[in-house]
Amino acid sequence: MKCALITIGNELLSGMTINTNAAWIGNEFQNIGVSVNYHVTIPDEIDLIKSTLNQVSKDHDIVITTGGLGPTHDDITPTALYEYFNSKLTYDEEYWEQLKERFNKYNKNIPERNRSQVIKPHNGIMIPNPVGSARGLHFVKGDKWFFSMPGVPAEMKGMMSETIIPMLMARSNNEIHVKSIRVTGVPESGLAESLDDIIRKYNSCSFAFYPNLLEVNVRITSSDISTLKSAVEETIQKIGDSIFGFDDDSLESVIGKCLSEKGYTISTAESCTGGLIGHRLTEVSGSSEYYLGGIVSYSNMAKMKFLHVKEDTLNKVGAVSSETAVQMAEGVRKVFGSDIGISVTGIAGPGGGTDKKPVGTVYFGLALPDKTIVKHRVFGKNRTRNKQRSSQYALNMIRLALNEY
Amino acid sequence: MKCALITIGNELLSGMTINTNAAWIGNEFQNIGVSVNYHVTIPDEIDLIKSTLNQVSKDHDIVITTGGLGPTHDDITPTALYEYFNSKLTYDEEYWEQLKERFNKYNKNIPERNRSQVIKPHNGIMIPNPVGSARGLHFVKGDKWFFSMPGVPAEMKGMMSETIIPMLMARSNNEIHVKSIRVTGVPESGLAESLDDIIRKYNSCSFAFYPNLLEVNVRITSSDISTLKSAVEETIQKIGDSIFGFDDDSLESVIGKCLSEKGYTISTAESCTGGLIGHRLTEVSGSSEYYLGGIVSYSNMAKMKFLHVKEDTLNKVGAVSSETAVQMAEGVRKVFGSDIGISVTGIAGPGGGTDKKPVGTVYFGLALPDKTIVKHRVFGKNRTRNKQRSSQYALNMIRLALNEY
Repeated sequence: MKCALITIGNELLSGMTINTNAAWIGNEFQNIGVSVNYHVTIPDEIDLIKSTLNQVSKDHDIVITTGGLGPTHDDITPTALYEYFNSKLTYDEEYWEQLKERFNKYNKNIPERNRSQVIKPHNGIMIPNPVGSARGLHFVKGDKWFFSMPGVPAEMKGMMSETIIPMLMARSNNEIHVKSIRVTGVPESGLAESLDDIIRKYNSCSFAFYPNLLEVNVRITSSDISTLKSAVEETIQKIGDSIFGFDDDSLESVIGKCLSEKGYTISTAESCTGGLIGHRLTEVSGSSEYYLGGIVSYSNMAKMKFLHVKEDTLNKVGAVSSETAVQMAEGVRKVFGSDIGISVTGIAGPGGGTDKKPVGTVYFGLALPDKTIVKHRVFGKNRTRNKQRSSQYALNMIRLALNEY
Repeated sequence: MKCALITIGNELLSGMTINTNAAWIGNEFQNIGVSVNYHVTIPDEIDLIKSTLNQVSKDHDIVITTGGLGPTHDDITPTALYEYFNSKLTYDEEYWEQLKERFNKYNKNIPERNRSQVIKPHNGIMIPNPVGSARGLHFVKGDKWFFSMPGVPAEMKGMMSETIIPMLMARSNNEIHVKSIRVTGVPESGLAESLDDIIRKYNSCSFAFYPNLLEVNVRITSSDISTLKSAVEETIQKIGDSIFGFDDDSLESVIGKCLSEKGYTISTAESCTGGLIGHRLTEVSGSSEYYLGGIVSYSNMAKMKFLHVKEDTLNKVGAVSSETAVQMAEGVRKVFGSDIGISVTGIAGPGGGTDKKPVGTVYFGLALPDKTIVKHRVFGKNRTRNKQRSSQYALNMIRLALNEY
């Protein structure tokens, strides 16, 4: 089924609000075999809404609108729909009583302007709002289905999950199955090349690559669950341990789960990342179970005083060196008494580079119970990106090492 | 001038990529008096691109496209444009040589498929790409201007800033002057209310409020520079020291500048923020000048061992208390030998709350040369948001204190 999405609101066009609803809807619909292949954002103007409904419903089975269902004078989407579908309007007294009660529960009187939200058309169906007071609308014209929802993300998502997606799944014959394989440390181009044979073999599956700065998300889609399973299995075998997780996993949550299960503790010694690795590790609820803390050793003094990096090392090979990375990792492991210590030291940029150690040069140390691993990478010129990539590389080192313990 | 925006790409429709370009363009154009009032997202299909160009150019002075300019077979936007404008094509050998050189610099051979990127039309102008290899395109048809850019945000932004915005500003008769006033620690509603009189007084200016989790950006726009100046001055006087900066300032860059100027050093003692404050301080280039480092004391052991928090305090009033916050701040200041020490200790959630100390409870300590300030806030239930808001509150405490030194 083909879907057109109309998002309504000046705040989207002026850039005040980033349109995250559109991506959420596109993603959810893909999972149930509905493809959004047209999306338009327009201002709150009745005639424009009507003409857009008319235009997009020609080529699409489903038309979705978001925005303009609230109680204020800007909210003119229902009026446009009623005009477009020639609706006769009545007051839904039952819903008015429900709203009154809801307001009473919070010791509030219902404002009279909310009266506009209990109007209902004779030829449309109201969609319950599990979160707010503005209900959605559903109309049918021939074999076209129309749905209208508020723009507030929580309200839109509630209506989608509880009403619209189940209705569309019931209408759709072809089920769609999806698996996301999340990969880090391999560039998209190399990944696509290495999966070439599998992609050709499973030509009834769709393979999509979604790269960002830190990872590539390989999404495989199929209408047949067992074909999908085989394709996913072969892909996993081919990519191997560059896969850090599936679907909604994050690298930090995967590491956290692994540390918890194995009963290991960890500490961090950060120079150029400035605390970013600790921040990421502690994004996981329950991380205090395994993360003991860390030293942000942004100065040489801090490296020596807290991590026992030798002055001699700093003088001879410098703070950005494999020797310093090793001493930092072993030092933090020792002073925190943790099973694992991870360290990062580098030149985040844009200043501070030399011929031998250009901006983006980073050394990583991973102190484990029986050995210390050291790695070296040269990233780019951008400070923020270098910090992000360094944190990802360090976390991935931890993940790979944990596989062996 | 009215602008229509066409964003091209399946990744936008399927929800894999959130369309941040549209908001950025909407925002930038508003600053120069161009209003985006139509935005459509379509798949990479030549006929659809052509018909959309035709449709939107009827009602708009400016048509912008993003996406589909890369070197792969999906990238068919130029083909659609050449067909739409009946272009005759030639190879731009000069640009081919430039590209070759650019690849050589990184010891790479240029792939043959990049050859598609040196095609140029007889009736269009190429827009330089300061970041990548795909150039943009500019066509004129009657009084309509068309611009086509890559979808990669950094490339799009580079072309907009260096070429397209200056061209549009030169075309536009009415100059627009803009000032952003950046405020933290005050909710949007309170801010709008307190500015009510000023907004009424300066009714030829436009006042817009852009709130996010951490701050409110008050943007004042006027066609008259001296009116804008007066409006800005009065707004600054009214809001007072909740203003942390203007235009592109960040809270961390403002603090950094202030620390550098005054010659102060700082260190951090973080519990619930896990390193986020250090991470934010080190987003500023040159921060090693004033940021000596920090302790992420995620465990009680770390609080005692590195920050000399008393065991007695932890036992009697707990790690999340004003006493602990004070000892952490004073401790980190002492062990790092910095002029200023900042500490944060709290319950990020979603677990770990009690009746007396619910999730979101956070204590802040700021140790200064002659005194220590302690503050207490209760944020919400969401871990990530609590960490972000705590880091903002801590940084703002530093900023406010620095005003007095």
